Amino acid sequence: MEAGEGVSGTTPTEEMNGAGNLMDFLDEPFPDVGTYEDFHTIDWLREKSRDTDRHRKITSKSKESFWELIKSLLDAWSGWVVMLLIGLLSGTLAGVIDLAVDWMTDLKEGVCLTAFYYSHEQCCWTSNETTFDDRDKCPQWQKWAELMTGHSEGGGAYLLNYFLYVLWALLFSFLAVSLVRVFAPYACGSGIPEIKTILSGFIIRGYLGKWTLLIKTVTLVLAVSSGLSLGKEGPLVHVACCCGNLFCSLFSKYSKNEGKRREVLSAAAAAGVSVAFGAPIGGVLFSLEEVSYYFPLKTLWRSFFAALVAAFTLRSINPFGNSRLVLFYVEYHTPWYMAELVPFILLGVFGGLWGTLFIRANIAWCRRRKTTQLGKYPVLEVIAVTGITALLAFPNPYTRRSTSELISELFNDCRALESSQLCDYINSPNMSRPVDDIPDRPAGPGVYTALWQLALALVFKIVITIFTFGMKIPSGLFIPSMAVGAIAGRIVGIAVEQMAYHHHDWIIFKNWCRPGADCVTPGLYAMVGAAACLGGVTRMTVSLVVIMFELTGGLEYIVPLMAAAVTSKWVADAFGKEGIYESHIQLNGYPYLDVRDEFTHRTLATDVMRPRRNDPPLAVLTQDSTTVEDVETLIKDTDYNGFPVVVSRESERLIGFVQRRDLTLAIKNARQKQDGVVSSSVVYFTEDAPQLPLSNPQPLKLRRVLNLSPFTVTDHTPMETVVDIFRKLGLRQCLVTRSGRLLGIITKKDVLRHMAQMMNQDPESIMFN
Amino acid sequence: MEAGEGVSGTTPTEEMNGAGNLMDFLDEPFPDVGTYEDFHTIDWLREKSRDTDRHRKITSKSKESFWELIKSLLDAWSGWVVMLLIGLLSGTLAGVIDLAVDWMTDLKEGVCLTAFYYSHEQCCWTSNETTFDDRDKCPQWQKWAELMTGHSEGGGAYLLNYFLYVLWALLFSFLAVSLVRVFAPYACGSGIPEIKTILSGFIIRGYLGKWTLLIKTVTLVLAVSSGLSLGKEGPLVHVACCCGNLFCSLFSKYSKNEGKRREVLSAAAAAGVSVAFGAPIGGVLFSLEEVSYYFPLKTLWRSFFAALVAAFTLRSINPFGNSRLVLFYVEYHTPWYMAELVPFILLGVFGGLWGTLFIRANIAWCRRRKTTQLGKYPVLEVIAVTGITALLAFPNPYTRRSTSELISELFNDCRALESSQLCDYINSPNMSRPVDDIPDRPAGPGVYTALWQLALALVFKIVITIFTFGMKIPSGLFIPSMAVGAIAGRIVGIAVEQMAYHHHDWIIFKNWCRPGADCVTPGLYAMVGAAACLGGVTRMTVSLVVIMFELTGGLEYIVPLMAAAVTSKWVADAFGKEGIYESHIQLNGYPYLDVRDEFTHRTLATDVMRPRRNDPPLAVLTQDSTTVEDVETLIKDTDYNGFPVVVSRESERLIGFVQRRDLTLAIKNARQKQDGVVSSSVVYFTEDAPQLPLSNPQPLKLRRVLNLSPFTVTDHTPMETVVDIFRKLGLRQCLVTRSGRLLGIITKKDVLRHMAQMMNQDPESIMFN
Repeated sequence: MEAGEGVSGTTPTEEMNGAGNLMDFLDEPFPDVGTYEDFHTIDWLREKSRDTDRHRKITSKSKESFWELIKSLLDAWSGWVVMLLIGLLSGTLAGVIDLAVDWMTDLKEGVCLTAFYYSHEQCCWTSNETTFDDRDKCPQWQKWAELMTGHSEGGGAYLLNYFLYVLWALLFSFLAVSLVRVFAPYACGSGIPEIKTILSGFIIRGYLGKWTLLIKTVTLVLAVSSGLSLGKEGPLVHVACCCGNLFCSLFSKYSKNEGKRREVLSAAAAAGVSVAFGAPIGGVLFSLEEVSYYFPLKTLWRSFFAALVAAFTLRSINPFGNSRLVLFYVEYHTPWYMAELVPFILLGVFGGLWGTLFIRANIAWCRRRKTTQLGKYPVLEVIAVTGITALLAFPNPYTRRSTSELISELFNDCRALESSQLCDYINSPNMSRPVDDIPDRPAGPGVYTALWQLALALVFKIVITIFTFGMKIPSGLFIPSMAVGAIAGRIVGIAVEQMAYHHHDWIIFKNWCRPGADCVTPGLYAMVGAAACLGGVTRMTVSLVVIMFELTGGLEYIVPLMAAAVTSKWVADAFGKEGIYESHIQLNGYPYLDVRDEFTHRTLATDVMRPRRNDPPLAVLTQDSTTVEDVETLIKDTDYNGFPVVVSRESERLIGFVQRRDLTLAIKNARQKQDGVVSSSVVYFTEDAPQLPLSNPQPLKLRRVLNLSPFTVTDHTPMETVVDIFRKLGLRQCLVTRSGRLLGIITKKDVLRHMAQMMNQDPESIMFN
Repeated sequence: MEAGEGVSGTTPTEEMNGAGNLMDFLDEPFPDVGTYEDFHTIDWLREKSRDTDRHRKITSKSKESFWELIKSLLDAWSGWVVMLLIGLLSGTLAGVIDLAVDWMTDLKEGVCLTAFYYSHEQCCWTSNETTFDDRDKCPQWQKWAELMTGHSEGGGAYLLNYFLYVLWALLFSFLAVSLVRVFAPYACGSGIPEIKTILSGFIIRGYLGKWTLLIKTVTLVLAVSSGLSLGKEGPLVHVACCCGNLFCSLFSKYSKNEGKRREVLSAAAAAGVSVAFGAPIGGVLFSLEEVSYYFPLKTLWRSFFAALVAAFTLRSINPFGNSRLVLFYVEYHTPWYMAELVPFILLGVFGGLWGTLFIRANIAWCRRRKTTQLGKYPVLEVIAVTGITALLAFPNPYTRRSTSELISELFNDCRALESSQLCDYINSPNMSRPVDDIPDRPAGPGVYTALWQLALALVFKIVITIFTFGMKIPSGLFIPSMAVGAIAGRIVGIAVEQMAYHHHDWIIFKNWCRPGADCVTPGLYAMVGAAACLGGVTRMTVSLVVIMFELTGGLEYIVPLMAAAVTSKWVADAFGKEGIYESHIQLNGYPYLDVRDEFTHRTLATDVMRPRRNDPPLAVLTQDSTTVEDVETLIKDTDYNGFPVVVSRESERLIGFVQRRDLTLAIKNARQKQDGVVSSSVVYFTEDAPQLPLSNPQPLKLRRVLNLSPFTVTDHTPMETVVDIFRKLGLRQCLVTRSGRLLGIITKKDVLRHMAQMMNQDPESIMFN
């Protein structure tokens, strides 16, 4: 430490002014005081009270002059400005990402001759030779084999296309993983577990930095385009939060206060989901339900604003070319019937089981990656998984295309996809209705082929997603989960539909599905399945249903969605309370105190506090008998984040709490700038230090860095109350007293450790929450 | 008190068993321990910990037998059962109320000859002679004058109809106010201020009782039918909460725990709004934003369930006969343009001003009612206001009909209301388009008449609503506020539309409103105006926009709605932070700690705690030196809710806190049931009482009723932190210490008083939040 810096030889020149100087010096806070170190927890109460101070200062200044009044008004409006900027930037980025992904995904198969930067769809749109029915085929768009060899058909062309598809995929994923490795290691993964942890009050420097923003945006495009089984939704939340963090730095109100910054980040997360799905209300609820920790009502309103601005910015960019806000817009024309709740609930069960399976397998695989040699070759891993994915995906038309296109096709009913294989129904010749209105028809061979291919795609997606999520590239989980559910749902939907067609007389169909009636919508089953699988993996509830509701825009289908989501959550919860994000938080050991875990054990504060029975006594400072040297030794010998200050070691009566960082900085500053402070100086935490004769070392007054209102509980306080206090007030630590005497300390980590211990002791209890 | 009950003469028969008996006696808690008195605040932490205890007991029992396992599962599911029941009952009640209001509103004008219980619309529906165009006229439906005199036209008929209209209105309102007066005084008003207070942890016995439910439902129908300027939306929330409270009593989990009960009530409030507007998501957000205090995520999910069940129950009753879920379903066919934001924002300003005016005037009037003779004649007041309302309302067609019909007409565009006076546009003869598609036409004389009548209706509604809200009948504020806004909005909308028609060349119209284009939708202006006025009065934000969004079902119009809602809130906030509900809470002096008020003053706990400087010292008990008589004297002489227990008066070291109610009950019980407890018995709060010789009075051990984990803060804690702790943890009181010594106590009331004081000292500071 700074003990040997040789300041002890300074002669005390201004003896009487010493105390005065000291006061001045401490009146201006020295730099960095009140900041946090990397990987440390913030103190929400302190942040809040610092913001109130700042606010108070501005308000009182605003009465002094007109300029100060303007400044105070600007300060009051800065929150809205930040929200507007976040909405604009994250909407723009989402639009750019969508456009780039479209183009690069198509680049794996071919190129547009008119302009190489056109995607397949854009290429044929601009072509004059395209009719609406054949909008996918136009001479300007050429597959690679056609361009290179001139042949578009035949085995050779197929193999060449196959080869180039794999090659492009490998190139994209190699670029993605290399960029992440070299420039921004934090850009990998979905980012939601880390954002949850950050929002709960943890510091991870650089996680939301400019480099992460840039690299994540670029590599997200590459990763999605490479055809890996991953989505862009989770990473978009990360990107939006990076935007939020970026704009925080424009205003000292947000950049200098970790609590206020987190309010902005919560809103940014809402904007991220809003642009990911085009669902602003769902985004706000997602932020509220899934991501945020501290969500005051003010934030709710601002998040909504940010989410709306983002959604409208995205719509004005119009990346999907249909001026729809939502990613998977659907419109169904038939209602659902009560009897259909049975297959919907079965899909819910499937979703819950898939969620459990996925979480367990993925966590096991990630743990293996962390603990074995595997983790040392991230680039190789990505290349290998991409290679396998591309090789297996190309032959199957349902896996070759991008996953969002697949989901979109599965969600739609046959009115919208007449040309698809999935809609190859046999029309009876004496049908009087128009062809595009399809009631009750038998499936044709195309449907049966599609079913087989979908079944293979389902198995493939289930397996490969387990290995993909957690690799060192940006990877979201929403889209693969939804794809699994949509495939399963569509298969079930077609099965029910055909069963109804062939057995109109069965009791289960008799009442609602007469011959010729359009009673089963397989697309709705796909949507319900997608909701169930997404719910099983993430354990979202309200936000999930609202996002799905915003996709369809009608209240009609809320009951099926809700039935599936509830079933899926219950089934998955029966096997383990944690969603994929909480599991990854646990795997990475982040200090995250989940608001949803209920602590129901009978332990008391005294069972959790340190020091334990056989530990050395608690490291405390006394208010007027510790020397600078003692303090420095204590700082050197321990790694605690702070120390309680007591009246005297005998009485053990608590005065306050001092942060290690503040203490270190204060002593360092005093030794450098203040005369007469030497190792043997006594540190005073009292209001007045005694006037010492000149010969004695001058005292060091540190009351300024002392927190005079540390949080205390008695040793008899039940741990459930303590957990509640930690959660709701966002404490870093809490002191334990008995009849006014200091007994010990409980930190957030102690609480987390204790909760984990208790959970393992009694795993059954969690089933009844 | 019980000091002189003469128990002191009891001979101590079982000396040695005394202590043993005592333990047994206190092991079974005596009745009523842990309950609260009427008009007292609950202790959220204690309720939570009691629920955890109960839960723990059930969980450990569930391992004993299969029956116990079933019971524990039933317990775990009871929350969902309660939600289902609330949804079903409140949906049904809302449907019944809608049907009854429809019928009784029409009864004021005439009667259906086929069946007297048919409303006008139902009557003409069932008639065969009705064509779709003339669906309002059918021979079966007769106005009173026609029925009585045989003449349907002419001055006499008009006067007779007028007279009967007023008479029915007076009859309905007289019945309503009498029922409220006689059977359920709590059934008056909107109920939302009280529900907010109850949800924040206050006990008002009977406010949510069965009688209130019954009487409020009946009188709500009467009050709305009487044509007074009030709505059914707020009271529906109260009705739903009464349902919630009713079903709580089925399960001891909810009936015996005030904290858990409030979770159910929050969900019930969501169900209430859900059926009021047919907006389940908006209902949940309303409950979250406006009503609830403690809203864990579990409640969010359950509220959503209850809101959905309620909405679907209502839809299956189908009171509006159009199988629409929502109250004011609208569909617009034209987009909005950026330039229109100017009138929308102006409507926002109007809404904010109306909100301010209404709140100030209404509160002033209610205060006058409370403090003067006026309050003594509630029946007369209702009769007078109804008379004036009916007399003024009948001549104007826009005030004669029910307010919801008026709003519905104002919201719709002219496609849906071809026959209305509001759509009397002049068709140019060379128009090639179909008549029901109306672009850009000049207004006809009907429109100008309508504008005048609307302007008169606006003034009438503004004035009469101020006097109506707060009378002793059920009265909601949503509908009158929305009506004011919708009228103003429609007027502005028609003005803009006609301005655009006549001045297509003006710069402001040139870019977006070409001749022949259908560029202005007056109905949208009405909707925006309604949102602005509702926002100004209630200060709802997100929930308001979401409810409005659910009415239209499209994201298209969210930006206009939001612009108006934001402006309205800002304008209204500039004149005072409080919405109408908070103002009424203040007026009634309920102990409500608003989560939204930010406390930004520099005061410390020591400035707020009692005893103040010149007060007598704090009333404390010592752990082992107070006698039963001392305690009884203390209870008699003071009216505190509880007393701190200290080691000794000298050391002032805090041991715990004992509730007055528990202490009284414990001593009463001990005196009745336990031998040897006399006035001179020493009360022990320590773990062990000393063994005293037989001749001495036996000690009374009261550690069982002692709360060993009272909440403490230091005297240096800033009040903003204290306020935060009170809010977030839901405390009743908090003890103040300095270096381990007990200094004083801060109760919720002290906090509220201090906040009010600070607010009055510095009213400017609130403008900057």
